[in-house]
Amino acid sequence: MAAPQSSGSIPPSIADAYDPERFRRDGHALIDALADQLAAATGRDEAPVLALGDPTAARAAWAFDPAASPVALVDTLTAAAAGAIRLHHPRYLGHQVPPPIPGAALGDLVSALCNNGMSVYEMGPTAMPIEFAVIDWMAQAVGLPSTATGVLTSGGSVGNLTALLAARQARAGWDVWGAGDPGGPPLAVLCSSQVHYSIARALRIMGWGADGAIAVPVDDRFRLDPAALPAALERARALGRRVIAVVASAGATATGAFDPLLAIGDFCAAHGLWLHVDGAHGAALAISKHRALVDGLARADSIVWDAHKMLAMPALCTAVLFREPGRAYEAFAQEASYLFEGARPDAEWWNLGLRTLECTKRMMALKLYACLRAYGPGLFTDYVERTVALGAALAARLAATDDFELATPPDANIVCYRWRPRGAPAPGPALDAFTAQLRRRAVADGRFYILQTRLGAGLWLRSALMNPLTEDRDLDELLDHVRALGADLVTE
Amino acid sequence: MAAPQSSGSIPPSIADAYDPERFRRDGHALIDALADQLAAATGRDEAPVLALGDPTAARAAWAFDPAASPVALVDTLTAAAAGAIRLHHPRYLGHQVPPPIPGAALGDLVSALCNNGMSVYEMGPTAMPIEFAVIDWMAQAVGLPSTATGVLTSGGSVGNLTALLAARQARAGWDVWGAGDPGGPPLAVLCSSQVHYSIARALRIMGWGADGAIAVPVDDRFRLDPAALPAALERARALGRRVIAVVASAGATATGAFDPLLAIGDFCAAHGLWLHVDGAHGAALAISKHRALVDGLARADSIVWDAHKMLAMPALCTAVLFREPGRAYEAFAQEASYLFEGARPDAEWWNLGLRTLECTKRMMALKLYACLRAYGPGLFTDYVERTVALGAALAARLAATDDFELATPPDANIVCYRWRPRGAPAPGPALDAFTAQLRRRAVADGRFYILQTRLGAGLWLRSALMNPLTEDRDLDELLDHVRALGADLVTE
Repeated sequence: MAAPQSSGSIPPSIADAYDPERFRRDGHALIDALADQLAAATGRDEAPVLALGDPTAARAAWAFDPAASPVALVDTLTAAAAGAIRLHHPRYLGHQVPPPIPGAALGDLVSALCNNGMSVYEMGPTAMPIEFAVIDWMAQAVGLPSTATGVLTSGGSVGNLTALLAARQARAGWDVWGAGDPGGPPLAVLCSSQVHYSIARALRIMGWGADGAIAVPVDDRFRLDPAALPAALERARALGRRVIAVVASAGATATGAFDPLLAIGDFCAAHGLWLHVDGAHGAALAISKHRALVDGLARADSIVWDAHKMLAMPALCTAVLFREPGRAYEAFAQEASYLFEGARPDAEWWNLGLRTLECTKRMMALKLYACLRAYGPGLFTDYVERTVALGAALAARLAATDDFELATPPDANIVCYRWRPRGAPAPGPALDAFTAQLRRRAVADGRFYILQTRLGAGLWLRSALMNPLTEDRDLDELLDHVRALGADLVTE
Repeated sequence: MAAPQSSGSIPPSIADAYDPERFRRDGHALIDALADQLAAATGRDEAPVLALGDPTAARAAWAFDPAASPVALVDTLTAAAAGAIRLHHPRYLGHQVPPPIPGAALGDLVSALCNNGMSVYEMGPTAMPIEFAVIDWMAQAVGLPSTATGVLTSGGSVGNLTALLAARQARAGWDVWGAGDPGGPPLAVLCSSQVHYSIARALRIMGWGADGAIAVPVDDRFRLDPAALPAALERARALGRRVIAVVASAGATATGAFDPLLAIGDFCAAHGLWLHVDGAHGAALAISKHRALVDGLARADSIVWDAHKMLAMPALCTAVLFREPGRAYEAFAQEASYLFEGARPDAEWWNLGLRTLECTKRMMALKLYACLRAYGPGLFTDYVERTVALGAALAARLAATDDFELATPPDANIVCYRWRPRGAPAPGPALDAFTAQLRRRAVADGRFYILQTRLGAGLWLRSALMNPLTEDRDLDELLDHVRALGADLVTE
């Protein structure tokens, strides 16, 4: 060993970057710039919701050149924000990604600066209890027993994977975690074609392949048909698959349809199957007057609920809830002597890393916790009911016209529709092509943001009503806007 | 359809929570509070680095009571920050979680407020090109060819899983994604016992069980011994396993040891194996004068590199880099008509959701990009070299004493050591118990934050030198501090 005993002095670059007064200066400048941008967006300024350039040109414009002159931190940040899609604009009517409550973004600033990795309690002295406070509130909100528990994780996809890993370990019939597959017949779950693509992804990650998901037919409103479950179970058996779970959607992605949880729960109970509910979008309806849509949620063995959807949090903030607390430890086991001390994971309930796929984890509960304390749960109830009312208002408008077609009456705040005026093609490839072209025009125009999705055989426009600042006049203007874009297309 | 055409008026709770002027007010107050806290921590105030209460009491203290009076948002946030473990204090000498560059936390504020979900380009008009700018810089930094690509994802555990899924799909010999396991013999990877626990987790998630990881012996400095690879391959074959990859560590977690990548790369090339390098911690050494430690990194098929480790970013910001660009699409395939249009994923290179396990994803590149432009890459080189110098300085101090024992000369900035004064027990259970007790005292005291880890048969104290504001005097005082705590223990 001839290592020098001195580490030398702190380089000026480090002293400068870590200077608290620099942070203070930059911080104040940034807050003002963001508040101004927020006021412009919520105030319905004339600038587009989305200004989308050619992707190759965008990549060139934002390329990083190490030899270029420095650009002030706040300049880069405000430019990135200015060019982002503006979720706070009331004409953002697109994905199930909300305009976050601005105070929650301040919570994320604290999480980032503190950077408590929180896989062990020592690394999250406040992050740990705050996560439990949020989990307890969420578990209680969906009606789970007081012994239920769970964990927050980075996103619904990781959340669904976590829940399915717990289901696999609990119901496969052998120790899959330790012995691996195959230790018995190939496994499968039953689910409708409308489940989020992260379910199929999770199954393929686990090595179950395409046949790991056995499709259950849906009714005419895209809800899983519980009467079709026995036949699906038979079909799985005929394929040589052992079914361990049913995955239901509380708010399917494409249409927002809610699967009938009570009937599915009965089927699961009768057949010893795990019930996983992907409530990423819709579990939040439990805190609203629309809670009948999620009747039966409390019978789930596991629930995924994204606070970054219908609780208006910035991404990511996903809860994975387990009715039986021990299940929270079944998804993962690990050895990491630098982290954990105990031989039994539940002897260290305060070390949240024992329950998640993640090692280092953001303090993601803080934003929701701070908003709950500042605004009360009522704000979230208002948010859910407001966005569902917007979905109903849009659907009612569409249904009252003779040139728009509604795919299905929306259960909540996701609406699928298309423009089909007199003389438009009948449903089929020509109408689909027209709808796709119309949607491309809408994106290029940018004054409203709407989506498209394939439902059964047809292509439809799609809007998730996630912005509670959207008003009736925006919905009226959306219809006029689509008509005008469509008329231009027809003329050409 | 009898849905009402009106959505009603915006509830006052919503108008208030989304008020830009409220954001401005709260934001300025929060910035000042955080800047003050930062000044106290970096200024080595007398308050402890870590003040850890009883976990049950903490949970009670932070419980959320929906009926309680509102607490101002900024009050909750500053209290949560005040009770956090203070990574910016120069006596934080614990986990591989850095005190983030404060300006990067401001970048995370922008990411949170904009909340661009970025799985498709439309939902990240600036997030997409900024992510590519960061990926390009990182790929170039580790010497990958200019055609290399990758993706950012939420954490090293998800990153390692992503890379191993790509390896599985590329090298299993059949379409595991579509057909599932088993479509051939059970699979395995070769790796040392020192790889991060997320590697074993990923293999168990994929259903490979405990035997999915075939252990390769390490040398006396905890580096994978390449001479032992052929025997490990034979052992796997004897177990009936088909080996598809070697997983090497560029900075193993416990000791920071760097596996010899050139020799491992030769072995992989000779046997047609995928080389995955978990460089979560150490890939950053490529931008420093210590780059010889990662010689061979450019031969990897996949690399994981956490910017939230040695690039001093707030968690999470993990890059998964692929030498062959097509591999970036092999980990995942999916159908989500509301998201993607193309039949071939690489026809939509700008839609990053095609490459990650995540659907909604934070704009996680922005913080690093803004810092690169503001401070230049030199800041990161200085950060890496400073923290490695601190590791060497601590090791030299320990080696120069006769009462401390160094587990192994550190390759970089992770140092394992124990206090073993004259009269202390010989290595074995008694010394381990003493070390564990000493570490518990250190946590309870809280003026320094250090860890423990098991290395081979023994228990050691462990420090990752992640705070570039740590100075020689802190290291001197750490030794005195451990001695004083140890002397108290001996006296009792």
